Amino acid sequence: MSIPDEKIHPVATGRAAETVAKHQEPQELVFYAGWFCPYVQRSWIALEEKGIPYQYKEVNPYKKEKHFLEINPKGLVPAIEYKGKALYESLVLCEFFEDAFPAHTLHLLPQDPLERAYARLWIDFISKSVVPSVQRLIQAQDANKQREALEDSVKALRTVAAQVKGPWFLGTQFSLVDVVLAPWIVRDYIITEHRGYTREAVGADWKEYAARLENRDSVLATQSDKEHYAEIYQRYLRDEAMSEVAKAIRAGRPLP
Amino acid sequence: MSIPDEKIHPVATGRAAETVAKHQEPQELVFYAGWFCPYVQRSWIALEEKGIPYQYKEVNPYKKEKHFLEINPKGLVPAIEYKGKALYESLVLCEFFEDAFPAHTLHLLPQDPLERAYARLWIDFISKSVVPSVQRLIQAQDANKQREALEDSVKALRTVAAQVKGPWFLGTQFSLVDVVLAPWIVRDYIITEHRGYTREAVGADWKEYAARLENRDSVLATQSDKEHYAEIYQRYLRDEAMSEVAKAIRAGRPLP
Ligand SMILES: N[C@@H](CCC(=O)N[C@@H](CS)C(=O)NCC(=O)O)C(=O)O
Ligand SMILES: N[C@@H](CCC(=O)N[C@@H](CS)C(=O)NCC(=O)O)C(=O)O
Repeated sequence: MSIPDEKIHPVATGRAAETVAKHQEPQELVFYAGWFCPYVQRSWIALEEKGIPYQYKEVNPYKKEKHFLEINPKGLVPAIEYKGKALYESLVLCEFFEDAFPAHTLHLLPQDPLERAYARLWIDFISKSVVPSVQRLIQAQDANKQREALEDSVKALRTVAAQVKGPWFLGTQFSLVDVVLAPWIVRDYIITEHRGYTREAVGADWKEYAARLENRDSVLATQSDKEHYAEIYQRYLRDEAMSEVAKAIRAGRPLP
Repeated sequence: MSIPDEKIHPVATGRAAETVAKHQEPQELVFYAGWFCPYVQRSWIALEEKGIPYQYKEVNPYKKEKHFLEINPKGLVPAIEYKGKALYESLVLCEFFEDAFPAHTLHLLPQDPLERAYARLWIDFISKSVVPSVQRLIQAQDANKQREALEDSVKALRTVAAQVKGPWFLGTQFSLVDVVLAPWIVRDYIITEHRGYTREAVGADWKEYAARLENRDSVLATQSDKEHYAEIYQRYLRDEAMSEVAKAIRAGRPLP
């Protein structure tokens, strides 16, 4: 039986398609990605920011193809192969790029251990508070649940906003905290159009920070055309998606 | 109104009390801890393993005292103060100890970036699969929910068990993966006594690994007497605990 989530648009479009086209040559690092996936976009932004050579391979993770399950038994994108080893989990990959390519262009984590820990603390907050509440907001069907999830989302984002030093989260250094947030910011028009969210509700500074992040070159370079995201989000907005994330939200279980 | 969780035994006992006594002198690193807390025990084991000088301060996190909320606005132990800065979250602290004290006695993460990422991948799995399912098992009240949570817990632990190279998770190197698991292993007698869990159900090798971990000196040195844990777990077993973790499990929300 074909599950609805399998029928997503097969390839990246717009600016992201140009980036994909530039990364077809075989490389030591193979990046298994889904153009639509916010978790993928985190790792993809990190690769672009650091200027790491990589080969982009489009995977439809809903198909759970055998070769892909050998790389990531959880069957989720993003994943990589590097020197014969497989790795996955967007945050683990971001940290790995930092560890394995320290000299590439730009550091995405501060060198000072205290500041590095501070960055990780906020990445943890984004994972535990921002991402799940926004995901609940998208999937919430009844008005009460939507209102509650909207409040939680705005509250979580305000907590983040209060820490943004500007221009980036940590100040002048663009870091993994910005990277990890960006995919949810570029997709927030979905909760604006369908769930009454506004950047202004978080704060005027947040609106500016979000616009800055959205226009960062690495973020633009990993974005597909809006209409194709909309197609996918329709299923989430009706709470009909069958992805692991969608199922976890419905069951009140930790996100995969 | 006094909440029940406030009335926990006030101080460490047994071997942990000896360790606390040895760490009363002021130090650059102040460790805010609750003797009973599995998340605390992770960071505490890491401090002991690495031989980092620290001052132990007992905090009852359920009291949400003003000074403590200034250190961790989430009001959770563990937390630290170091060079005038505050940090919290057990995993962030473990990584921080590794970054800030690289030369101390022992590395808790591999130096090779790929192996380091592999360790983080499994720490992530433990956080997302082992800890939440065991916590659900403890709090589950009806027979069906208990059975389901027991299955999930055993399944998650088997997935971990299949990766244990022996004697430790990564092989000869004792690492953060072992550290992060240990507090749940030393407390598993609770789900054995009350929820039908056995180490054998996970596997014969798991039983050996668990015993090895339980007898590691840093683990023993951070353990209090069994009867005082039992006191605390009674409230969880009746699903009456009012901690953030207990509330998150009840609400089907991410653990704090
Ligand atoms: N925790 C993972 C989540 C990755 C994830 O959920 N990816 C989705 C696409 S956005 C996926 O591969 N889904 C396939 C499925 O749910 O079956 C990460 O951070 O990498
Ligand atoms: N994610 C946190 C969890 C820490 C946590 O939940 N600590 C508990 C004690 S075991 C606590 O301080 N609870 C106070 C409360 O729930 O109000 C970590 O890993 O450090």
